[in-house]
Amino acid sequence: MNAFTFYNPVKIYFGKDAIENVRHELSAFGPNVLLTYGGGSIKRNGLYERVVTILKECGKNITELSGIMANPRTTKVEEGVSLVKENHIDLILAVGGGSVIDCSKAIATVSCMEDMTDYWERLFVKKEKTNRALPLAAIVTLPATGSEMNTDCVITNWEEQLKYSYSSIHQYPRFSILDPQYTFTMPREQIVYGSIDILSHIYEIYFSMPDENNVSDDVALALMKNVMENLELALDNPLNETARGNLMWDATMALNGIIQVGKQEDWMAHKIEHALSAFYDIPHGAGLAIVHPVYLAYICKGHYEKFAHYAVSVMGIDPTGKTNHELALEGLKATSAFFKKIGAPTTLREVGIPASAIAAIAEKTLCIKTSYGELTKEDVAAILRQCY
Amino acid sequence: MNAFTFYNPVKIYFGKDAIENVRHELSAFGPNVLLTYGGGSIKRNGLYERVVTILKECGKNITELSGIMANPRTTKVEEGVSLVKENHIDLILAVGGGSVIDCSKAIATVSCMEDMTDYWERLFVKKEKTNRALPLAAIVTLPATGSEMNTDCVITNWEEQLKYSYSSIHQYPRFSILDPQYTFTMPREQIVYGSIDILSHIYEIYFSMPDENNVSDDVALALMKNVMENLELALDNPLNETARGNLMWDATMALNGIIQVGKQEDWMAHKIEHALSAFYDIPHGAGLAIVHPVYLAYICKGHYEKFAHYAVSVMGIDPTGKTNHELALEGLKATSAFFKKIGAPTTLREVGIPASAIAAIAEKTLCIKTSYGELTKEDVAAILRQCY
Repeated sequence: MNAFTFYNPVKIYFGKDAIENVRHELSAFGPNVLLTYGGGSIKRNGLYERVVTILKECGKNITELSGIMANPRTTKVEEGVSLVKENHIDLILAVGGGSVIDCSKAIATVSCMEDMTDYWERLFVKKEKTNRALPLAAIVTLPATGSEMNTDCVITNWEEQLKYSYSSIHQYPRFSILDPQYTFTMPREQIVYGSIDILSHIYEIYFSMPDENNVSDDVALALMKNVMENLELALDNPLNETARGNLMWDATMALNGIIQVGKQEDWMAHKIEHALSAFYDIPHGAGLAIVHPVYLAYICKGHYEKFAHYAVSVMGIDPTGKTNHELALEGLKATSAFFKKIGAPTTLREVGIPASAIAAIAEKTLCIKTSYGELTKEDVAAILRQCY
Repeated sequence: MNAFTFYNPVKIYFGKDAIENVRHELSAFGPNVLLTYGGGSIKRNGLYERVVTILKECGKNITELSGIMANPRTTKVEEGVSLVKENHIDLILAVGGGSVIDCSKAIATVSCMEDMTDYWERLFVKKEKTNRALPLAAIVTLPATGSEMNTDCVITNWEEQLKYSYSSIHQYPRFSILDPQYTFTMPREQIVYGSIDILSHIYEIYFSMPDENNVSDDVALALMKNVMENLELALDNPLNETARGNLMWDATMALNGIIQVGKQEDWMAHKIEHALSAFYDIPHGAGLAIVHPVYLAYICKGHYEKFAHYAVSVMGIDPTGKTNHELALEGLKATSAFFKKIGAPTTLREVGIPASAIAAIAEKTLCIKTSYGELTKEDVAAILRQCY
């Protein structure tokens, strides 16, 4: 195990009617709550009404920021910050998936900046350290990003076609509510893309140095297997409570730091996908399904043993008579086939991104020296051409 | 997944020279530190001197409580409480394994009680709730109990021959230092017993309801495998840094709550072992090696599928042509054989506990209704007879 620091103080309430815990948690905060959410789904499934009732019964004043969509934008962050200032908000309560929670985290941080001019440049580009954020809490309706138990947010700057992240210890939610029943009404497409996002998070961490035997990687493999098994069960029967509960906790576990300890993490497939979806408003999970297996095949040289381990223990590939190199490639082919089987696109063509766009997307990709080697914009273009 | 609440705010610093982080952490506490430790091993390996130097350089006044041995006793807790009161202690810094940390937790809680009369009865027997404890932090030298990242302590009342636990959210260490190099000088026996203790913790959690597919159980299986693999590597070469690091983090992960979410946990093998070692001062890990496989074989009926899963995925038993019942028993036999192979006792006879003591030990065992069924004192006696 490499050296690490682990600290995660988020309180998780998981299970049926876990939302009732909001009542006693609310007493720690002032009276003004900014309730943030996305489209109308929480109004249709009754969750909106339940949250509002609890907030009112606890004597809170509610301000609303609605319409936070996938790939939340800087404009929405700014709208939220204005509401925070006008209404002297004490707590942001995010009800939704990763986009709503991420947007709320950015609002929480930006609204505490003394001077928010150039906040995009200072936080998302230069990663300037901040020393506080407004308290926030989350009620999760879509298991995917793990945002409910970590410090990160990803925001899209639509004008500059950039999708960057910002991380701060002050962005940890004070508490998060995970009730699998809120996920029962998710459309099939969202279950699929959410689960691919979960798997992709685990890949970004597992497929990075160190390769040597370590606890984090072993737990990562267990989580990948659990996601795949339970995704198939949930697609067969969307009301399978066990499967939905497992997927929900898998999503949180994938990014709450536990499988990240001692790992370098590369996040290069996400960086390519962020460039993709900054140009084309495709679902994050769709972009990942296209990019991830191709990216991994591109970089697996020199790490065949680790990829073979994944192929055998997660994808169930029979190792008899095969080299690690063969197993690695077979495992990645099987991964792409799994994505296709569950209905995700696996080529850029399928989502209508033209080959002519590849150069510009590669140019926009934030290239870094990963733990598995340096990836240039030329490499990204080569990967994207293989995704076509 | 069953409903659960998860909250663990312990900050972990892991890796070589992680102890340097003590410096900035100390600034959050007052000047008077109670330094607690066990025998002389930390004086021999230089750790004592390093800790004292750091404390002095940070301007702290040091009071010492030494000689905290395995199965720490109420008398030692009381000695610590007196030192806390006489010296107006602001922080307890525990340097050692689970016994030192557990004893320090009890001191932290008892010294904050307004009236500590009957503290044994009130806390350890009746589990009375407390609302504060003195801050404590840990520097781990023996990976085993996971005490460095949880709320529990186990204390022995030698006069009453009882070994009971107490748990309080205020007993979470503020921070814990895990540097695998401090474990390099552990005697072989301690590596063995510490690792059996880790495995046993995972068994107590995994082998409990629910049996249905859940994230916690999948992570538990991954940890068990990691412990067994790395224990053998560490015994082959005690200076194998990777193996020692993995074992150290396995110990913490086994009991920091992560594999416990949604699980009922039974802890019945520990309860039997606690009765054993309240009568006979044998190492905790030795008692567990004797009791655990026999206890599991005694209760596995009706849960063969789960036991078979363990046998195949952790113990590497070939499932071809075998029933789950057969696999379950074969897996437990292999577990006992593994304990024997690494040098642990697997019968009461080997540790000199006479058959005539069984009735009294069973009588002392705290029997509970476990999630796998009720275990009476007669059952415990039957299990202990099979351990002979």
